[in-house]
Amino acid sequence: MSGATGDIGLIGLAVMGQNLILNMNDKGFTVVCYNRTTSKVDHFLENEAKGTKVQGAHSIQELCAKLKRPRKIILLVKAGPAVDDFIKQLEPYLEQGDIVIDGGNSHFPDSIRRTKELESKGLLFVGSGVSGGEEGARYGPSLMPGGSPAAWDSIKEIFQKTAAQVEGDPCCDWVGETGAGHYVKMVHNGIEYGDMQLISEAYDILKRGLGLSEDEIADIFFKWNKGVLDSFLIDITANILKFKDDDGEPVVSKILDQAGQKGTGKWTAINALDAGMPVTLIGEAVFSRCLSALKAERTRASKVIAGPQKETFRGDKQQFIDDLEQALYASKIISYTQGFMLMRETAKELNWNLNYAGIARMWRGGCIIKSVFLGDITSAYTKTPALESLLFDDFFNKAVHKAQPGWRRIIAQAVLWGIPTPAFSTALAFFDGYRSEIVPANLLQAQRDYFGAHTFRVLPGKENAKFKAGEDIHVNWTGRGGNVSASSYVA
Amino acid sequence: MSGATGDIGLIGLAVMGQNLILNMNDKGFTVVCYNRTTSKVDHFLENEAKGTKVQGAHSIQELCAKLKRPRKIILLVKAGPAVDDFIKQLEPYLEQGDIVIDGGNSHFPDSIRRTKELESKGLLFVGSGVSGGEEGARYGPSLMPGGSPAAWDSIKEIFQKTAAQVEGDPCCDWVGETGAGHYVKMVHNGIEYGDMQLISEAYDILKRGLGLSEDEIADIFFKWNKGVLDSFLIDITANILKFKDDDGEPVVSKILDQAGQKGTGKWTAINALDAGMPVTLIGEAVFSRCLSALKAERTRASKVIAGPQKETFRGDKQQFIDDLEQALYASKIISYTQGFMLMRETAKELNWNLNYAGIARMWRGGCIIKSVFLGDITSAYTKTPALESLLFDDFFNKAVHKAQPGWRRIIAQAVLWGIPTPAFSTALAFFDGYRSEIVPANLLQAQRDYFGAHTFRVLPGKENAKFKAGEDIHVNWTGRGGNVSASSYVA
Repeated sequence: MSGATGDIGLIGLAVMGQNLILNMNDKGFTVVCYNRTTSKVDHFLENEAKGTKVQGAHSIQELCAKLKRPRKIILLVKAGPAVDDFIKQLEPYLEQGDIVIDGGNSHFPDSIRRTKELESKGLLFVGSGVSGGEEGARYGPSLMPGGSPAAWDSIKEIFQKTAAQVEGDPCCDWVGETGAGHYVKMVHNGIEYGDMQLISEAYDILKRGLGLSEDEIADIFFKWNKGVLDSFLIDITANILKFKDDDGEPVVSKILDQAGQKGTGKWTAINALDAGMPVTLIGEAVFSRCLSALKAERTRASKVIAGPQKETFRGDKQQFIDDLEQALYASKIISYTQGFMLMRETAKELNWNLNYAGIARMWRGGCIIKSVFLGDITSAYTKTPALESLLFDDFFNKAVHKAQPGWRRIIAQAVLWGIPTPAFSTALAFFDGYRSEIVPANLLQAQRDYFGAHTFRVLPGKENAKFKAGEDIHVNWTGRGGNVSASSYVA
Repeated sequence: MSGATGDIGLIGLAVMGQNLILNMNDKGFTVVCYNRTTSKVDHFLENEAKGTKVQGAHSIQELCAKLKRPRKIILLVKAGPAVDDFIKQLEPYLEQGDIVIDGGNSHFPDSIRRTKELESKGLLFVGSGVSGGEEGARYGPSLMPGGSPAAWDSIKEIFQKTAAQVEGDPCCDWVGETGAGHYVKMVHNGIEYGDMQLISEAYDILKRGLGLSEDEIADIFFKWNKGVLDSFLIDITANILKFKDDDGEPVVSKILDQAGQKGTGKWTAINALDAGMPVTLIGEAVFSRCLSALKAERTRASKVIAGPQKETFRGDKQQFIDDLEQALYASKIISYTQGFMLMRETAKELNWNLNYAGIARMWRGGCIIKSVFLGDITSAYTKTPALESLLFDDFFNKAVHKAQPGWRRIIAQAVLWGIPTPAFSTALAFFDGYRSEIVPANLLQAQRDYFGAHTFRVLPGKENAKFKAGEDIHVNWTGRGGNVSASSYVA
């Protein structure tokens, strides 16, 4: 349609939508916005968007009429039926090659389905992770677009200019086919759950273990933010801890200790279970939020269950704090190791060619987990694209070896104090299991064969006439029972 | 049909099916068996079932013709499409009020669906957990039937006589509506995963930590089997550790340390995530199996990642072994606490009235997790049917307090040794979180509000003019950003 001047359309004027519009406007693009409750459009144009090039639309038809071809329309609405609903409303006004972009937190199987559905109608679909929250959306988010590859050329400039920039590189690149964009965003969010849980455990140890004040803890986080932990989350944690209410008390100590969790962190944990990959740290992070939500039950339990006797810390405080920094660092290395192992497995299953260095680069800035650390991961995968896991990379291998003694001391101390460290502990358990050539699953297999005739395989080097390599072996442990193996029935 | 003499039909002649038939035959019931590959029927009648009253059928029609009304037919086939397939094959030969029983490891949502489908056709459906493996099926399993309540009267006698008996009580009772039977069986299996993992960790600590031989470890398990840990799994573990190959080497040390996991343990962990209940121990048990499966990667990792320097244990060995018994016991208490919390939550969601004492009684014998311990749980829920959690019961509350110091010492030592204890550790982390009135989720909520305007609630006792009870509070932490809260968009 001639006269159309909009570079891109955006539907949904909640905080993320508003901020993304203002950001794209700053980068020189003409954005046309629409919202189901149209009074929000007017309010936005008269307030936050006043004096910008942003245009409003009061109907889907008007929105589409104002956009240049191929049309590019971002949905920033609640994940789920609302996305399908808006796609259905858009379709009558779209033409061959137009691009629908879902920038919400959709579950990747939905994006796989939507890509197929829209492509079958001659349209293109992009499911893009958008991370960085309010601030990121406004000043440069991390964008993780995947879907119809043909769409990339048309949206590349807008996406890469809108995204955060780190050392001249945009935190945005093409992720992969169908649901890959939302999948990688999901894993990002799971990792974000993990990072936040690790920081919370460190805070808890400093507060309940060492008995430090919020101000003292803030100073420690400010210091950590200059070292290997340098990251957005460490930075805002320090700021949060310093932030006072009018009465001088830290606001953080007035906040109810009950966290929400029914989101993408949970999906990542479920995906890990389905993929059979031990992404234990994200699992524990999600479960910790579940436990925090049982506030009333915890309060009642606290009255009837006592922990260990409280003891004043008599050791070297600075050494302990340095150990804690290493514990957090090592646990974080494990969490990212697990996350990348999960992506590797899923890419194998779904035939995606994921660019791991690119993913780390996209996460390096603009998003909640942005950090110097992700620069190191970028380097690792740039050097060895087929890296088996981060722990095989020289840099991280050395880092984890160095961190190990302090990491162990912190967990041992927290265990004796009675301060919960589910994420630190599971990270270490994974580390110790991962580096074990032999784990006690042999006993487990013996048990399964004993009670369910599930059979087992022989350990390499232990083969003999009865225990042959590559064979499913059943032992009649009791001298009773049949000699039927449970090939088709798993008890 | 007159002349029909079969009390019950059974489809599927793998190990579980064969053994259940022989068991029901022993209890005086006439069983008619059928198998898709009909040569198996003849082979079974001429071998294992020789001299019994068991009858064979070479078609579904023949099977149905040989059964008294209302017909009762148990399917013991691979969970999934095979169950629906056999139901479809059966339907033409069934009449009003006939009962189809699925004794496989079906996922409970399938049993919810099948109950509704069969009831809409005037038939009855029972989804029954069958536990106990080869041995249990043969000599008395734990049976957990749920589905159409009208079916219970007709199958009660056969089920309760076929089930294991403990102190005169059958390990079988009616569990509840629709999918309740398979649901409870699923949680049972999850708990079984947990129990096996805990035993494996104890074995690993004794072997790699104390350097004991399989014979020495067997003796410890035999001793534990006379105390609070008295159970089938501890007993078979001792037997397994004693079981030698012809060359005198324990068979267990010749078994590949790589366990399967794609079953009901995984479902329980996913269900826990969906229900928002922190069933962390089963989660870690499933993930441990996943990690064990990465044998090749672990082997490569073991070459490039070193753990702590090995140190000979210089403490009191017997004290350490006693501590380990307490660590296993306390972790087990936590695992069952979590499992019953999950069932409570699901019953609330699906409007089932689960009888927790009855469930513990069903598990007390016949199944893989049978134990004296489950008698204690039966007592706890008999005394207080609405018990909030096991940790509020006097017996378990005292037990966990007593176990606590040893439990902590074991984990601290394993952490320093570099022996992974994912299940022990997560159990303790849960325990320390559960008994904490305040957990550090306040910081997490502050972070979420900082980067995503997700809002938080005020901690009771900290209310003021700005922070009001019951309100979603947002703080403008940075002085920048909008004042829109993220009500409809979760980043």
